[in-house]
Amino acid sequence: MEYFNIGIIGTGNVALHLATALEAAGHVITHIYGRDINKAAALAERLYDAEPTNELDFSESEAGIFLIAVSDNAIEEVATGLIVPDHAVIAHTSGSKPLQVLENYHPHVGVFYPLQTFSQVNKINFEEIPLLIEYNNNTVKESLTALGLSLSKEVYYLNSEQRRVLHVGAVFACNFVNHMMTLSKRVVEAEELPFKLLHPLMKETFRKAMKLGPEAAQTGPALRGDFSVVNAHLEMLADNKELASLYREISMSIYNNR
Amino acid sequence: MEYFNIGIIGTGNVALHLATALEAAGHVITHIYGRDINKAAALAERLYDAEPTNELDFSESEAGIFLIAVSDNAIEEVATGLIVPDHAVIAHTSGSKPLQVLENYHPHVGVFYPLQTFSQVNKINFEEIPLLIEYNNNTVKESLTALGLSLSKEVYYLNSEQRRVLHVGAVFACNFVNHMMTLSKRVVEAEELPFKLLHPLMKETFRKAMKLGPEAAQTGPALRGDFSVVNAHLEMLADNKELASLYREISMSIYNNR
Repeated sequence: MEYFNIGIIGTGNVALHLATALEAAGHVITHIYGRDINKAAALAERLYDAEPTNELDFSESEAGIFLIAVSDNAIEEVATGLIVPDHAVIAHTSGSKPLQVLENYHPHVGVFYPLQTFSQVNKINFEEIPLLIEYNNNTVKESLTALGLSLSKEVYYLNSEQRRVLHVGAVFACNFVNHMMTLSKRVVEAEELPFKLLHPLMKETFRKAMKLGPEAAQTGPALRGDFSVVNAHLEMLADNKELASLYREISMSIYNNR
Repeated sequence: MEYFNIGIIGTGNVALHLATALEAAGHVITHIYGRDINKAAALAERLYDAEPTNELDFSESEAGIFLIAVSDNAIEEVATGLIVPDHAVIAHTSGSKPLQVLENYHPHVGVFYPLQTFSQVNKINFEEIPLLIEYNNNTVKESLTALGLSLSKEVYYLNSEQRRVLHVGAVFACNFVNHMMTLSKRVVEAEELPFKLLHPLMKETFRKAMKLGPEAAQTGPALRGDFSVVNAHLEMLADNKELASLYREISMSIYNNR
């Protein structure tokens, strides 16, 4: 296996989890960059060899790979300022930004996108997380592939457009799924019923969707075309225009897609 | 513990799982009623003592409880035809129908609603399934409570209105959640990407929602108010008016509920 010296640009959740996992896999994190030096220092303290810094000049660095793990809107600004040795690889870790945002600034660029949601507290097991890789030349491809395989069994080559499609898919399957649960909780708690009554049903729904595929697992009044129930529910929600409108539109979508 | 002789009216998934679980808990299923005698016989064969029948006259039956587990629309028709001994309890098992649909036909009536989704194949562990009970007098309350506690730790008394609210909540948290996954799969597979790439992210999303509560677990461009991403996604979905419209409306709902 090949081990790398890696500079991490960023101090957020992605930076934290990537740095920790890469170190556990045998790589060396040489630097942690943060605009706020205190945040960089706090993250560096959790690692073995990392130096915190708030300067983007890495021309003297021994790192061979620089991973940009900052918010989408800050990537290009960081890429503009970043100075690294000519042979080094720079990759961002964003699902929605194209490779192209790095190409103007450096010869060896790529994307190293872990398709997962990271929170402060949870330890993440990278082994099963899909790592989506993009590259502008073979040097980058080889480095990022080796890096990816040191973390996960699931390494894929996707172009920027495919990554964007997956991101839209993730919005539906994760962000929107979660919001439906939030709305459910609001409906139930408005009548002072405990949301946890629905937990077993939610667990089973999720299990069935993963096992059978969601299109085969669909149930409910809209699917059955049971409009007496759909209309009764709409009446109950009539006080809340937003909820009623969502209920109507999603029900029609289920009905139309039977 | 009190054991009951029970007549089951119906041959679908709820009838199957209830009958099996009740027998395993020590009760005796005396009859299985089905309009189609073959279906009644097929279910009765999976039980110890049950007699299949396609007649609703149980005036000579030794059963003390009759559970109506037929589709919502058939409950009232069955209740009209059902003849049972005066002391017996009749309960339906529906989340959305009120107790009232039984009250015209019999002195002792109730609702015995297991809040779960049942499929043909999966063995269901009733222990954690909420059983929602309603009754029109204390005899019914005592019988159904004893019956419920023989299956599950989670026995609750909810009136018809509360059950309806929970049903609306279940539509959001289960039917709509599942449909969001279906739409995600369609978006992703339209570009020939494997939906399973999103599975780890979906699992973590679900885990976080259950642990933190969905309102605390929300993420994504709409929550951040990142309209450059939201608009880019809407552009990608422009060919499909239904998807684009749902994307817009749900995103606005997330944004408005920050």
